[in-house]
Amino acid sequence: MASDKRLVLGVAGFGTVGTGLASILEENRDWIIERTGREIVIKTILVRDVSKKRTADLPAGATLTADPQELLNDPDIDVLVELMGGIEAPKELILKALNAKMHVVTANKALLAEEGFELFRAAQENNVGLYYEASVCGGIPIVQTLRESLAGNKVNSLVGILNGTANYILSEMTTNGLDFATALSQAQELGFAEADPTLDIEGFDAAHKLCLLIRLAFGKDYPFAKLPVQGISKVDPMDIEFAREFGYRLKLLGEVRNVDGKLEAGVFPMLVHHTYLIARVGGAYNAVRMEGNAVGPVFLHGLGAGAKPTGSAVLGDIMAVARDCAPNNTGFVAQVPDAAEIMPPQDSESCYYFRVMVPDQPGVLRDLAGAMAKQGISIAQATQKGQDPIGVPIVFMTHEAKASDVQAALDDLQKAGLLLAEPVHYRIL
Amino acid sequence: MASDKRLVLGVAGFGTVGTGLASILEENRDWIIERTGREIVIKTILVRDVSKKRTADLPAGATLTADPQELLNDPDIDVLVELMGGIEAPKELILKALNAKMHVVTANKALLAEEGFELFRAAQENNVGLYYEASVCGGIPIVQTLRESLAGNKVNSLVGILNGTANYILSEMTTNGLDFATALSQAQELGFAEADPTLDIEGFDAAHKLCLLIRLAFGKDYPFAKLPVQGISKVDPMDIEFAREFGYRLKLLGEVRNVDGKLEAGVFPMLVHHTYLIARVGGAYNAVRMEGNAVGPVFLHGLGAGAKPTGSAVLGDIMAVARDCAPNNTGFVAQVPDAAEIMPPQDSESCYYFRVMVPDQPGVLRDLAGAMAKQGISIAQATQKGQDPIGVPIVFMTHEAKASDVQAALDDLQKAGLLLAEPVHYRIL
Repeated sequence: MASDKRLVLGVAGFGTVGTGLASILEENRDWIIERTGREIVIKTILVRDVSKKRTADLPAGATLTADPQELLNDPDIDVLVELMGGIEAPKELILKALNAKMHVVTANKALLAEEGFELFRAAQENNVGLYYEASVCGGIPIVQTLRESLAGNKVNSLVGILNGTANYILSEMTTNGLDFATALSQAQELGFAEADPTLDIEGFDAAHKLCLLIRLAFGKDYPFAKLPVQGISKVDPMDIEFAREFGYRLKLLGEVRNVDGKLEAGVFPMLVHHTYLIARVGGAYNAVRMEGNAVGPVFLHGLGAGAKPTGSAVLGDIMAVARDCAPNNTGFVAQVPDAAEIMPPQDSESCYYFRVMVPDQPGVLRDLAGAMAKQGISIAQATQKGQDPIGVPIVFMTHEAKASDVQAALDDLQKAGLLLAEPVHYRIL
Repeated sequence: MASDKRLVLGVAGFGTVGTGLASILEENRDWIIERTGREIVIKTILVRDVSKKRTADLPAGATLTADPQELLNDPDIDVLVELMGGIEAPKELILKALNAKMHVVTANKALLAEEGFELFRAAQENNVGLYYEASVCGGIPIVQTLRESLAGNKVNSLVGILNGTANYILSEMTTNGLDFATALSQAQELGFAEADPTLDIEGFDAAHKLCLLIRLAFGKDYPFAKLPVQGISKVDPMDIEFAREFGYRLKLLGEVRNVDGKLEAGVFPMLVHHTYLIARVGGAYNAVRMEGNAVGPVFLHGLGAGAKPTGSAVLGDIMAVARDCAPNNTGFVAQVPDAAEIMPPQDSESCYYFRVMVPDQPGVLRDLAGAMAKQGISIAQATQKGQDPIGVPIVFMTHEAKASDVQAALDDLQKAGLLLAEPVHYRIL
């Protein structure tokens, strides 16, 4: 099955995931040999500053270097494990490694989503593996599942909680009634959110992952820059509470659907009915639900981040190299996918949740319903809360409506001077 | 990545899964070529009686035969897909195919659980693949996940809803208040249960699957014959209702835990707290929750049976052959695992649910609690229902207790003449 030779790693970056990988390799050393017949060892670790004081011990026998050439020119090294983050530096390093016939394992979703094709092409030209299970949903084996286990399925739809930080914040807002700012600082204190949380809370990290999942599931390129993305930084606890009264949870979801060959995709805060498994995904967990034309719905759930869960995914990829797997990097014969046919976001249809603040006076609900009806939007249920001369919230949920009609209705309402504050609307899954 | 050559299948058995596979191959033909670069075709279908009237069309170009040699001696055929069921006949066929250097894909859990080693050894000797994703949990990619994606993890525990028929019956009893017999006949009418449902309702099918999962997760052999197995045919709706009042659902689970190197395993109806994802698995769905020492908890959910979900799993394996994957049949270097160190079932510890029918008279609860306390069993909560001179149920849940102590306490109660009927007890997950 595999040679008795050791499999030698060069690791670029020794932060959370790198130290997690090193500790799993040590803890599960004998186990990995039982599984693959080979010992997997870290020889060289590339860091920016070798003199920096480190909290984690180096793996036995490993040396630190700040010079990428020490890693790239070492004929002992079989696999480059890229865990640096960023785009330009890792891209250069990975390309050089692939061209030096090294296999590459990476957790870098931003790089793969924004500039992956050049890497996949280089991997193919050199007939080496470019693995990236760790780049989407941490320890959840969604990449191999889409690329191999369920590869015979045409995917009808895929939806996921792809960012643990955002999910943690929304979960805290829901369970403990925190406002966004408080939940964010709590997440930062606990290490669930970074000092600059923009990528996580504005949905860009989830969007990177969604681009990779779209490629794996559909074999098509949906460019990151074209993906509609909305984050959670403006979520008001009031809407979480109203949603809950209707039986829903507010979740930041990445979603893609195949609508007659066109891909309808985006990252949005959405309402999910509490009976759905995905509504039950709490804290820093991630989950993906995909529906294939043969397998039906499949749901995967696990830890989306953290040293050991992500290290586990990195290790799974390294073990595939240890088993001498033939490269199956994109999961398709074509390493550079065709462009996806994109459904224009304004054409996408969904049920919606609306909250508007209006004067507490007779006829307002009628005017609201009229503005909706004018655009062909049908209201499924509505509730008006409290009595306050200054203004009251009216919350309503609609049947399926086109995004462009929703926008037109909101414009009409604004023009009619009926609204006391910016209206809020979310899609319903 | 793969040759342009067609991949040619011989399929043994053309029942539910075989027809499902054929229809996916036809429906997703171009898609499979995009994925693997190869066309996958069924050439020969082995059936018992070629003259039998069939409801499904044969795949284009395929011929029926009742002679295994037509399949085994055909140099065109790359893969034997075994979907016959049973033990002796498929075993003989698979062994011959492996020895003829054909790859084999099978959905036969009973065969692999009871007599798998000979097959894995033959596959290794012939350096061919023996794939079996479809043998556990239908479309859920649990085999590849344990064998590859999460292979770097030592598994601490694994628990699953491994039989859709039993889960459907328990779900109907829970949701619609049916008794067992009614729920079973409903399942039979809907095609969820076979005419002879013994394997499903008595837990043996789940036990076969659990044996396979134990091998994949731990690399150890836990013999099917030694696995404690309890079915659901004696489940009383009263206990489902009491469990629900305490916040639990009754589920037929296969479970294995690593307790200091010993495997504690079995198939039992168990109470699961309603907040657990596994408690939410309804109808004919299956699910597995595993906990690895690196990845933490991972939960997979999907359809556990049916033509297309199971066909999807068969196809995933066939596509691995099409990609010329090196055989990784058991997921370990050793093709025949060592015997598991088995924790004696009487030593296993669990929290328990009890229901006893006792005379409605003073002191009974005290005597009950006394019998439990004598065996060191501590009661966590108790409830006594109704008032009836003939007898009332007392339901209580315990803290962790040893199975042998539970048995001793039940024996004491029986001897004391305190019980008006056979006591009921279930483990709590």
